[in-house]
Amino acid sequence: MKALEKGDIVCLLSEDGKKWLVKIESRNFSTHNGIINLDSITGKSPGGFVMTSTNHKLYFFIPSIEELILHYVKRSTQIIYPKDAGYLILKLGIKEGMKILEIGTGSGAMTLALAYFVGKTGKIYTYEERENFSKKAKHLIEQLNLSDRVVFHTKNIADGIEENNFDSAIIDIKNPQDYLDKVISCLSCGASFGIVVPTTNQVSTVLEISETLPVIDVGVCEILLRKYKTNPERLRPNDVMVGHTAYLITGRKISV
Amino acid sequence: MKALEKGDIVCLLSEDGKKWLVKIESRNFSTHNGIINLDSITGKSPGGFVMTSTNHKLYFFIPSIEELILHYVKRSTQIIYPKDAGYLILKLGIKEGMKILEIGTGSGAMTLALAYFVGKTGKIYTYEERENFSKKAKHLIEQLNLSDRVVFHTKNIADGIEENNFDSAIIDIKNPQDYLDKVISCLSCGASFGIVVPTTNQVSTVLEISETLPVIDVGVCEILLRKYKTNPERLRPNDVMVGHTAYLITGRKISV
Amino acid sequence: MKALEKGDIVCLLSEDGKKWLVKIESRNFSTHNGIINLDSITGKSPGGFVMTSTNHKLYFFIPSIEELILHYVKRSTQIIYPKDAGYLILKLGIKEGMKILEIGTGSGAMTLALAYFVGKTGKIYTYEERENFSKKAKHLIEQLNLSDRVVFHTKNIADGIEENNFDSAIIDIKNPQDYLDKVISCLSCGASFGIVVPTTNQVSTVLEISETLPVIDVGVCEILLRKYKTNPERLRPNDVMVGHTAYLITGRKISV
Amino acid sequence: MKALEKGDIVCLLSEDGKKWLVKIESRNFSTHNGIINLDSITGKSPGGFVMTSTNHKLYFFIPSIEELILHYVKRSTQIIYPKDAGYLILKLGIKEGMKILEIGTGSGAMTLALAYFVGKTGKIYTYEERENFSKKAKHLIEQLNLSDRVVFHTKNIADGIEENNFDSAIIDIKNPQDYLDKVISCLSCGASFGIVVPTTNQVSTVLEISETLPVIDVGVCEILLRKYKTNPERLRPNDVMVGHTAYLITGRKISV
Repeated sequence: MKALEKGDIVCLLSEDGKKWLVKIESRNFSTHNGIINLDSITGKSPGGFVMTSTNHKLYFFIPSIEELILHYVKRSTQIIYPKDAGYLILKLGIKEGMKILEIGTGSGAMTLALAYFVGKTGKIYTYEERENFSKKAKHLIEQLNLSDRVVFHTKNIADGIEENNFDSAIIDIKNPQDYLDKVISCLSCGASFGIVVPTTNQVSTVLEISETLPVIDVGVCEILLRKYKTNPERLRPNDVMVGHTAYLITGRKISV
Repeated sequence: MKALEKGDIVCLLSEDGKKWLVKIESRNFSTHNGIINLDSITGKSPGGFVMTSTNHKLYFFIPSIEELILHYVKRSTQIIYPKDAGYLILKLGIKEGMKILEIGTGSGAMTLALAYFVGKTGKIYTYEERENFSKKAKHLIEQLNLSDRVVFHTKNIADGIEENNFDSAIIDIKNPQDYLDKVISCLSCGASFGIVVPTTNQVSTVLEISETLPVIDVGVCEILLRKYKTNPERLRPNDVMVGHTAYLITGRKISV
Repeated sequence: MKALEKGDIVCLLSEDGKKWLVKIESRNFSTHNGIINLDSITGKSPGGFVMTSTNHKLYFFIPSIEELILHYVKRSTQIIYPKDAGYLILKLGIKEGMKILEIGTGSGAMTLALAYFVGKTGKIYTYEERENFSKKAKHLIEQLNLSDRVVFHTKNIADGIEENNFDSAIIDIKNPQDYLDKVISCLSCGASFGIVVPTTNQVSTVLEISETLPVIDVGVCEILLRKYKTNPERLRPNDVMVGHTAYLITGRKISV
Repeated sequence: MKALEKGDIVCLLSEDGKKWLVKIESRNFSTHNGIINLDSITGKSPGGFVMTSTNHKLYFFIPSIEELILHYVKRSTQIIYPKDAGYLILKLGIKEGMKILEIGTGSGAMTLALAYFVGKTGKIYTYEERENFSKKAKHLIEQLNLSDRVVFHTKNIADGIEENNFDSAIIDIKNPQDYLDKVISCLSCGASFGIVVPTTNQVSTVLEISETLPVIDVGVCEILLRKYKTNPERLRPNDVMVGHTAYLITGRKISV
């Protein structure tokens, strides 16, 4: 792997397992295990470590998409969880070169995952009506050097979706039922779509609407992630786990 | 989306929700809802349908990675499930351009997911000692036009891993504990790794070995996928669900 | 334990783990492992075995409540599962001496569990409008020698609940929302209640109604039972599990 | 229900859903919603309320077994959870009149559940080597007026189990594998047993030992309890849930 440079986002990991995602720049960074100057990482290879002011190791890595979502995306709104994003990407068939519609940029967590997976030849068109969210997400995508893959629209999609012929769409807003017909009408025939909703009432409402639209293969699921303690002689799940993030509704547009 | 051509792999979907993945060629294809000649799909756009001999609609789509894994990969061995593959891809930080080691090609399910996500500039080196598996997986990758992204080795890795400086590794064999040190030694510092095992005993054994290796951030988890019936007025989970596929162990190599 | 007698219900268990619950009487009983005459068990102690016609052991036990529910109750309707019944019994505070209302006798699975736990001094009043169900459940309770603890009403509770001052109530019918006020009005202040419903829509409806009633401490949950394969060297959950039985809604009546 | 008396244990419930289990006696009890004198509950009927010093309602109930376990049993050690206790009671066939062996009294949570369900004619013999636990559990059982149903032994069972011919046994200690043979030898033929262990390693060890003992129908499971938020218009599971309490191993003794 290439050496780390100023401006790169790195994952710092303390000896006791705490993680931070930071940009490499000339400033001090404080942890419960002492201080480092972030600049001291410049030029080093991932997987190495620096010693903090109190003589603890601090490892650094190139962050995974999971770490970017969980530790870097500013949590100004509910983010999509990696367990859900990962499943959706395979379920929706996200691939390089795709043209994707995202309704509800939010913090940009899904935007960044999509941007990585559509590659240089793909494009994400993401809509968000709250200006502060849109701005933060745009900044995030810039920091990850993915700006040429994402077009940001700061507007309510009641005022129109400006593109069409999308290969896939992901909807993560409070009232997906109000815009589902509009979204479906912008998709290519055969395109997949995914909707992320937290409540069972929303699932029912979306399912009802979808019965009136040219869609097929509609499915609903939820994904549970259960982590384990890593003591090999006392293997057991963690005492507490995330009990719910969202229901995922997926389907495909058909020609009529 | 571009029109479908002879040789393309398509997902057929019956009105009652049954799916088949087939290659478009000049032959009849029989379903419980009648027969079609696959050639009749040639030149059509995804999302359309053809009528079967018994006057039922049969829709066709470009398959998602989930469908390729579940409906196309020959199940000569236990495949990795999309719920697990999707999570691993985000957790391991799989991205375009990566050089990835896969130990245990198996049916090629993970191979194909990796091949899609590393893009044109990435490369998968996959090892499998059983010749028939290796052959089938190679055929699968060829059919998906991903051959230039995958190097197949038909050998036991006890006899050596021929490359090094990998950005990530995925191990899905019966005895990962026997080769974990060898795999770790071929990774770049900072590289991620993921191990897929079905039993708790294997998890314990791998965790024990990993304590002796230059790795950090070792975690264990399992992913549960719970599907729901899609009647909006009677929303409820399916009566039966997959109760277990595998435990996922992940971590990162550090410099020592 | 006392010796088994004619008329007792026993659990038969084959060497390969198959179970049957039968009444001891003079008749042949056929299994995939050969035939026995049930009378040959008379006078034997639980935990013993008889040899079948094909020389296989068939063990016999006094059935647990779990086995009675899963293997003996005629499944003419959806039964309550032991995982749900067990939790409800502790959650509702079912104890000896209690006077309990059951709306929806169904197959009598919950009736029998309640009858065991209220003891000789308790009483269950159970309502069922479908005569054939009521009859079968009554027969079941007779066979278990619990008849003096259960009063069967074959009527629609729209026509009235004949008793009051109940210590607890369990409702397991299709439209609990239609009768919840009536049920609550028959409870003593401070009494607990439990409602068993399969769909999220029903949960929402019941929660809405309950907001208009003199109840408190209303909770909703579901219980998942995950079984494991018992190979000590390859410990892992079963491949398939029950994904859903019912949502459980519980609460307590208060004075107003 | 009869009026509450001095010395009764009641469940107090605040308007915002917080619970406390207390004994009725002449003393002040402070909550975040003001103070009451517990004596003011004497003579009142369950399901009623008293006003606190700051004019909030505080409801009172006869506690369920679930509440006794979760809110009253002093948590000096890991308690068994109601979800697990409830399932075990049905699975093991606990009924009135049974003679039950408990290895590991702990805080007395399981002891009290068993004592309720064996009724006046049953008996629990419970062993605990740590004197302080045994003492506290004894005090708990006394407060619940169940003392005539429970015999406490403060000793290590390495020094012998003093009774035999048990109808069922529950083992909840750190090293069940060391005493399983001894426990099985004290059971009647046909008796059920349940073992509660937190780790997969312990499950494997117990399964291995059990293969050498006269037992049959050995099963392993875990129970997951998932609670929901009770807003009918926004029904969804809680964000966080208990991810693990224990694995439950059950089986039956056979004659050899």
